[in-house]
Amino acid sequence: MKKKLMDVHSTITVTASEKYDVIIGRGLLARVGELIADKISKCKVAIITDDTVDALYSDKVIFSLKAKGLETAKFVFPHGEKSKCFKTYQDIISFLAENSFTRSDAVIALGGGVVGDITGFASATFLRGIKYFQVPTTLLAQIDSSVGGKTAIDIPQGKNLVGAFYQPQAVICDIDALDTLPKEVFLDGMGEASKYAVLDKKIFNLVKSQDYKLEELVTLCVDYKRKIVESDEFDKGNRALLNLGHTPAHGIEKLSNFSITHGNAVGMGLKIILKASLKQGNITESVYNELTSIVTKLVGENECPFSIEEICKNSLSDKKRSGDDISLVTVHGVGDCRIEKIKVENLTEYLS
Amino acid sequence: MKKKLMDVHSTITVTASEKYDVIIGRGLLARVGELIADKISKCKVAIITDDTVDALYSDKVIFSLKAKGLETAKFVFPHGEKSKCFKTYQDIISFLAENSFTRSDAVIALGGGVVGDITGFASATFLRGIKYFQVPTTLLAQIDSSVGGKTAIDIPQGKNLVGAFYQPQAVICDIDALDTLPKEVFLDGMGEASKYAVLDKKIFNLVKSQDYKLEELVTLCVDYKRKIVESDEFDKGNRALLNLGHTPAHGIEKLSNFSITHGNAVGMGLKIILKASLKQGNITESVYNELTSIVTKLVGENECPFSIEEICKNSLSDKKRSGDDISLVTVHGVGDCRIEKIKVENLTEYLS
Repeated sequence: MKKKLMDVHSTITVTASEKYDVIIGRGLLARVGELIADKISKCKVAIITDDTVDALYSDKVIFSLKAKGLETAKFVFPHGEKSKCFKTYQDIISFLAENSFTRSDAVIALGGGVVGDITGFASATFLRGIKYFQVPTTLLAQIDSSVGGKTAIDIPQGKNLVGAFYQPQAVICDIDALDTLPKEVFLDGMGEASKYAVLDKKIFNLVKSQDYKLEELVTLCVDYKRKIVESDEFDKGNRALLNLGHTPAHGIEKLSNFSITHGNAVGMGLKIILKASLKQGNITESVYNELTSIVTKLVGENECPFSIEEICKNSLSDKKRSGDDISLVTVHGVGDCRIEKIKVENLTEYLS
Repeated sequence: MKKKLMDVHSTITVTASEKYDVIIGRGLLARVGELIADKISKCKVAIITDDTVDALYSDKVIFSLKAKGLETAKFVFPHGEKSKCFKTYQDIISFLAENSFTRSDAVIALGGGVVGDITGFASATFLRGIKYFQVPTTLLAQIDSSVGGKTAIDIPQGKNLVGAFYQPQAVICDIDALDTLPKEVFLDGMGEASKYAVLDKKIFNLVKSQDYKLEELVTLCVDYKRKIVESDEFDKGNRALLNLGHTPAHGIEKLSNFSITHGNAVGMGLKIILKASLKQGNITESVYNELTSIVTKLVGENECPFSIEEICKNSLSDKKRSGDDISLVTVHGVGDCRIEKIKVENLTEYLS
């Protein structure tokens, strides 16, 4: 057993309403069957993925499942945020129903954040919930969206406005998959990584160092997320910390008609929040400079093309809103972020 | 306070993942605002209902909400099982998003089982869950579907194949609403009531007596359901007892293209199960006769127009299926029902 597990860099156990492992390492895609076998009985497994990831990894994963005697079925949809909609959700549900999936069968989300979110939501709601596994293949999905059980689809009125809390049976992060990511997709994940670097001193120190391994970054980010999810699975309190930079980011994505990807928008959103935190006197100029330069180091010099007024107007259908208030995460130091209630009508002024 | 509550016949507290009251009495529709006020802050409330119920009760409920200073919005869809689909679900979600509902707002499901199931599912998934209240206006919804947090929609492949477990904040059962039900809708509820009469001796004895009050029947059925839900909220064990009669019933509904309503199909399904239980030697002929006559007393002489072969073939996309097995509830005496695993290929023979 030890020998078999030699490619595993770390295993983090998340103790939420379901207890599950996040397994981080290299060469894991070829071992998905072996890694999930003890979680399921002899059953059917549906691989849900997009066309980009399908061409790269489906065969490898399916081979590993068949080697464990599991029956497989595959559903592929076009890549991109536009697919994270009612139509694809309904298509996945139909696919599971037509292939007679029952509650003793299982689903694998193989891909990035879009695949993970929509597959998680379909798994949460088909037969009121069947088992699913996250096999994230992008940096963003590995460090953020695949862990913690938030599943969702977008609707015309806003991103992630429909979804469920539903924990996976396991998350398998193959670091090898990150090596082949297009640069912009990798940077997209770095947007979320820069969020973690502001939230957590350990991650800040890691990314400040000149050379660190991706395994280490993914492990620290997942472990930070684990702590947050364990303390507030259903997003009623400090899980909102993970929304750092996200209120402006959602506005930015919407304004760009989603041509600016989520992670990039988070990077831009972070800089807006850092500037506001400096203006409010929450951080000194030197802390501001240190944090802003780390964000820039990770995501590059991406200028936000929209005005604060426009961004705020497009952030307000946000889940972070509660009546006339909005919860905004502000920065008070490296590893010291806080959730503040702001009146909706004061948001623009606060961020300007 | 005592005076105000004089129309309440009984209050049953369900202790599931959420703890909530089922309030049973007369004249309660005009007091919905008062009864839910302590569960919500000053917020917006969406009333979701169908056209039949809207004409009868919406004004009364809205008046009571406004009297408590609550802002209201209303969404009405065509009555009938056909509305319990993706399209209506999506319309409800759009309605909530366009009216800027947030997590601090609330939803009321005002109507029968269809309204309750689909509104519950929309509430479970909009923003990953907002508060909702069940205000059931049919016998079926009051004694069964509004309590216990099972929410769902139908898809072409079968009934209730998509949904979530999501408990309401309260259930308000106004017995007055039952007085004006069309006879066939009332009998539909009696189908589920006859299920409870087989499951529970107390309910059996109540309905055997010549005169009992509907308040008493609703109270006993809700209390039986409470016990089951508290012991198995997520339907992994003995909650399956509530499926008594439902495996054939789902086949019957599907074969009739849903012209035979759920409760009526349950009545027919019950008789099939009773016959099979007699054949298997689980019950004596006298118990069989006693139970069958109670079912007939409650639902009338409704002959099932389909063969067992047809029914079984159309029951198999059922959630009660797990791999090659199906869980069937069989009768071993009054108040003694058991869950048995049957091989899918043996179902027809078992029920014939």
